[in-house]
Amino acid sequence: MTLHLPHFKTTTAPISATNDGPAGTVATVGIVGGSGYTGALLAELLLRHPSVALTHMSSEQLAGQPVHGHLPRLHTGLAFCRQEEVTGVDVAFLCTPHGQAASVAKRLLDEGTRVIDLSADFRLEADLYEEWYAPHPHPELTPGVYGLTELRRDDIARARLVANPGCYPTAALLALSPILPLGLLDVVIDAKSGVTGAGKVPTSRTHFCSIDSDLVAYGIASHRHQPEITGGLDPQTTLTFVPHLVPLQRGISETLYVRAAHVPPPAEILELYHKAYDDELFVDISETPPELKDVAHTNTCRIFVTVDEGAGRIIIVTVIDNLMKGAAGQAVQNMNVMLGLPEHWGLV
Amino acid sequence: MTLHLPHFKTTTAPISATNDGPAGTVATVGIVGGSGYTGALLAELLLRHPSVALTHMSSEQLAGQPVHGHLPRLHTGLAFCRQEEVTGVDVAFLCTPHGQAASVAKRLLDEGTRVIDLSADFRLEADLYEEWYAPHPHPELTPGVYGLTELRRDDIARARLVANPGCYPTAALLALSPILPLGLLDVVIDAKSGVTGAGKVPTSRTHFCSIDSDLVAYGIASHRHQPEITGGLDPQTTLTFVPHLVPLQRGISETLYVRAAHVPPPAEILELYHKAYDDELFVDISETPPELKDVAHTNTCRIFVTVDEGAGRIIIVTVIDNLMKGAAGQAVQNMNVMLGLPEHWGLV
Amino acid sequence: MTLHLPHFKTTTAPISATNDGPAGTVATVGIVGGSGYTGALLAELLLRHPSVALTHMSSEQLAGQPVHGHLPRLHTGLAFCRQEEVTGVDVAFLCTPHGQAASVAKRLLDEGTRVIDLSADFRLEADLYEEWYAPHPHPELTPGVYGLTELRRDDIARARLVANPGCYPTAALLALSPILPLGLLDVVIDAKSGVTGAGKVPTSRTHFCSIDSDLVAYGIASHRHQPEITGGLDPQTTLTFVPHLVPLQRGISETLYVRAAHVPPPAEILELYHKAYDDELFVDISETPPELKDVAHTNTCRIFVTVDEGAGRIIIVTVIDNLMKGAAGQAVQNMNVMLGLPEHWGLV
Amino acid sequence: MTLHLPHFKTTTAPISATNDGPAGTVATVGIVGGSGYTGALLAELLLRHPSVALTHMSSEQLAGQPVHGHLPRLHTGLAFCRQEEVTGVDVAFLCTPHGQAASVAKRLLDEGTRVIDLSADFRLEADLYEEWYAPHPHPELTPGVYGLTELRRDDIARARLVANPGCYPTAALLALSPILPLGLLDVVIDAKSGVTGAGKVPTSRTHFCSIDSDLVAYGIASHRHQPEITGGLDPQTTLTFVPHLVPLQRGISETLYVRAAHVPPPAEILELYHKAYDDELFVDISETPPELKDVAHTNTCRIFVTVDEGAGRIIIVTVIDNLMKGAAGQAVQNMNVMLGLPEHWGLV
Repeated sequence: MTLHLPHFKTTTAPISATNDGPAGTVATVGIVGGSGYTGALLAELLLRHPSVALTHMSSEQLAGQPVHGHLPRLHTGLAFCRQEEVTGVDVAFLCTPHGQAASVAKRLLDEGTRVIDLSADFRLEADLYEEWYAPHPHPELTPGVYGLTELRRDDIARARLVANPGCYPTAALLALSPILPLGLLDVVIDAKSGVTGAGKVPTSRTHFCSIDSDLVAYGIASHRHQPEITGGLDPQTTLTFVPHLVPLQRGISETLYVRAAHVPPPAEILELYHKAYDDELFVDISETPPELKDVAHTNTCRIFVTVDEGAGRIIIVTVIDNLMKGAAGQAVQNMNVMLGLPEHWGLV
Repeated sequence: MTLHLPHFKTTTAPISATNDGPAGTVATVGIVGGSGYTGALLAELLLRHPSVALTHMSSEQLAGQPVHGHLPRLHTGLAFCRQEEVTGVDVAFLCTPHGQAASVAKRLLDEGTRVIDLSADFRLEADLYEEWYAPHPHPELTPGVYGLTELRRDDIARARLVANPGCYPTAALLALSPILPLGLLDVVIDAKSGVTGAGKVPTSRTHFCSIDSDLVAYGIASHRHQPEITGGLDPQTTLTFVPHLVPLQRGISETLYVRAAHVPPPAEILELYHKAYDDELFVDISETPPELKDVAHTNTCRIFVTVDEGAGRIIIVTVIDNLMKGAAGQAVQNMNVMLGLPEHWGLV
Repeated sequence: MTLHLPHFKTTTAPISATNDGPAGTVATVGIVGGSGYTGALLAELLLRHPSVALTHMSSEQLAGQPVHGHLPRLHTGLAFCRQEEVTGVDVAFLCTPHGQAASVAKRLLDEGTRVIDLSADFRLEADLYEEWYAPHPHPELTPGVYGLTELRRDDIARARLVANPGCYPTAALLALSPILPLGLLDVVIDAKSGVTGAGKVPTSRTHFCSIDSDLVAYGIASHRHQPEITGGLDPQTTLTFVPHLVPLQRGISETLYVRAAHVPPPAEILELYHKAYDDELFVDISETPPELKDVAHTNTCRIFVTVDEGAGRIIIVTVIDNLMKGAAGQAVQNMNVMLGLPEHWGLV
Repeated sequence: MTLHLPHFKTTTAPISATNDGPAGTVATVGIVGGSGYTGALLAELLLRHPSVALTHMSSEQLAGQPVHGHLPRLHTGLAFCRQEEVTGVDVAFLCTPHGQAASVAKRLLDEGTRVIDLSADFRLEADLYEEWYAPHPHPELTPGVYGLTELRRDDIARARLVANPGCYPTAALLALSPILPLGLLDVVIDAKSGVTGAGKVPTSRTHFCSIDSDLVAYGIASHRHQPEITGGLDPQTTLTFVPHLVPLQRGISETLYVRAAHVPPPAEILELYHKAYDDELFVDISETPPELKDVAHTNTCRIFVTVDEGAGRIIIVTVIDNLMKGAAGQAVQNMNVMLGLPEHWGLV
């Protein structure tokens, strides 16, 4: 490996010590929509990845301008390009708002590029998408392979189009999946999210003085991530999902209150989680209620489970970094699966 | 009214423009345990109150030292005294940790002083207290009149010993009380509290770097405020109560998920709340999910109610300032009721 | 005093226990530009004030809508009016952006209303205003009486038009004024401000994720408050003023590094401050570096002074709440002076 | 490279994709004092490093307990050991409080281990150390090679004992070093630090409610980092250094106000910085005042320079992550230099 330090700042070469890893560079990758929180973090991860080369990063407003100038954390000589210039890459990540990703995905798939879409465009069947969002421009492509890595690893490996899950559903489905066999009757999810989840566009809601020292529930029983969570449950399970905005930047914590047809003793329930996740690198079972700080800036999901014996209810607490396991991190994890690379490359 | 500005800083006279209000000074008051968050805020409120004179403020560690030196926000010439020196006042507020208040209360009651206890010592029957805390030193005095002003106003007016409610129960019971007639079957309370609720003693839990950018559930289905909430519900209602610590100083937000025997249409439920609280100065029904900032530093509780029609569940969101309506503010409100003064004096 | 609690929420009467204070209601007041941070806080203070009645509060965007609906903290039945409807009041407070206040002030002065302008429009001579802002529409009215209460009390008492000082200059000039006789040669002011100072309009700069965990210098040696500070110093004193934005809502802390022609021993310097401020209700000399929390939500300025003997320099640290002593609080203080009321009414 | 995912959680093998990098594992390393902020972050960096193996991590209180249990972010099977068990490693990092590092360093040096000390024990000459700290137990070892990598690279490469610089001096000396030739007469450093700089021990000062929404100056002209900064300046330069604690976790921002014998035009000054740092990977010259967020969790120092022409003063703003470039990151950078590895390995 040759690293020319003096040239670092003027070339496009990533400076990772780890490029040209054991597998060498096996793929070129591009990001469509690189100026938001998710796109910027994705670029940071991909620049550090040992076996891929980030060759394109688009932003309609910033096209032509050097990436480093706008995102000083990214040590790259790349300039932002326009969306249509992202072409010829092995894998493309779409970080555009929902509604815009669909047609970009279509173009790239037609070119033979494999696509990981971080918007909501391919997470639902077209008719459900229409109900919660808008008519789908390419219903024939829906749904993509749902990219919750731990639950759909084999499908993801073969997929041309992966729908990277929403942040809330990632935490919720990892928390509920091991106890689906108990017959879930009723689930309440009280979710708390950091402000990066609300996006980078300045609004009166995201003003510092609106968030600091404050906390507010929103989208009560009407949030668009609800059908995505329901999709992972039995049809007869009732679900109430209430997200809250909390005064911090990164992280989602969900407390789940579950009634099940069968509630075994706590030790048995815990065993279900260990069985499901002990071999998983990015899911930890925690012996105490997990904290956001233990997962901030990591791709890890931590899960705690207990039983409220008085009320006969299972209680689960789960935390992720919404930008990592809830978005960019899981996208890289999925890319690794698609490329046959170790799942954690570029992530630890 | 004469105000000698130059003397302000060296005398004990409160500088409130409002002392010698229409009613004149009608009572002397003292605070036992004045160095914590609640005691300090209580002093700030009482110094500003138009009709009472704060004559004693105790702290075992700081006895003899000027209050202003330790709490620069308090413009008073008072010095901290020892607990046993708080004597001869009309009303005493106890801000000591639970377990210590009971014997102080006994002494003061014997002296003829009316007592408002902000600890947990008189909120529960003695046997329930023993189950959740410790054997009670004065079971004959338990329980005090439960000081949730809006629900027990007449009893409070006549009380010698008021048990000021816990912060979580204040928010929960104000939220649930109007719909008790619907027959509550099952209640989940997901509560979020600021860090003042954890007290002023420095611990690794309250270190800035443990709280900032973090969020954690604690006391899952085992918090000591649970029996206090249960006490306000039907015996057959199942209750799950899970508090969380959030990165802010003041405020409690609770989201309550309620199954009831009868769930009328939303408009009818809302009507129950308006009927209960439209004449209340310190309870607001909000048309949107309320925010902590709207109640910070006020004695107001704001409540929002809706129905998750898909799940057949009532959802309530309620917010208070834990140090005000959840502690010192409600204590002053109770004092006003006990002294026959307008309930909001010293509070707005 | 009669207080009809049930009517509280539907009438315009302020609920302060303290209206009809010893002096009775002596003045009607109005606020032009009531939807920003300063206007809203000013309304909160005026509603609580014992001797004035807030009768008008304007907002062009919200005209016709109830104030309480937008600002739930304000317990008033007032609706927002349009700017030109603010008329017939004894005192008007202008909280509009600079450039807009001048013509409103002209109209109100012509009507005989006394004006306290919280914008920058009347703080500087017209030519200096033009240099730092824009040509002045009413140069004949400039400058207003500079409303730094402690320094200009007598002029303020007689003034028709008071220019309420900027937040940074308030803290700086209170800090420097006692040592002007030492002959200041060179002053460096390193100022740190909370985000309310940047206003309520959402921008990428005030987004929670831009402020939280961050800190940035801005307006280096080019901030518009610089000529206002210079105006209070000797012409030959060199001044460098650098403000910083810090992740908190309210408060300004300034550390001042001063070289003087004569640097007496520390005790003598301290004596200058005590002499200047011991009779002042809203200026405290602190024995340790003061903290923002000691002045948050108060009208107090706290000042600490020491000497760096190694470098031969006087160091001063001063803190205020930028919305209180730095804006709305000082405006009320000035109003009290203008109306001959005790200076602290409505402020403690 | 073989990676046994299932075994990950029970073995001591770091999971970095990048171990066995191009250079293979070239050194074993140990950490003395691994339970504080710096030690934990250092472990995180070393576990991710491609060419070293972390074999020891000591903590007197936690000896015998698994590291992952206390620091869930660290995916390692290591258990904490006792200080004296750290032996036989090629490089040892000392993260103990000052005063304790000296004797540990002595033992390890005698064993032939190269030492990077992150405490203050070897930054000053013994007599200066005694003046600011305490008598030095091993004056013969003082001072170590001062490990400000960019300024002392060659000495560090050959050093047996590196004194890793303090956080404030790192930022200050990188900012001042390029303009030393101008003849610095007078320097004021107004520094702002996040709370990790105050350490992990809970105190009333580091309580969340003492820090949040607050800001305070401390150690005015008496901070122990002052002689360390002075050590990098001309003896005749006067220096005033005032640190402030700000409500955020990680980062130091310093604004420096400099009078020099010769103040060339801004473009010439800027040229001095480019000349000094354009080939440096971890020092960026910024065209606008740099923000903490641009360097958080990175080893980068960003510097902005301008001239206040009115006052004839150079103003510099510089930011680092105090735990990275100000401690653990620079320690790894120094280790890389000592081992002849690319300086950025394990750091990007």
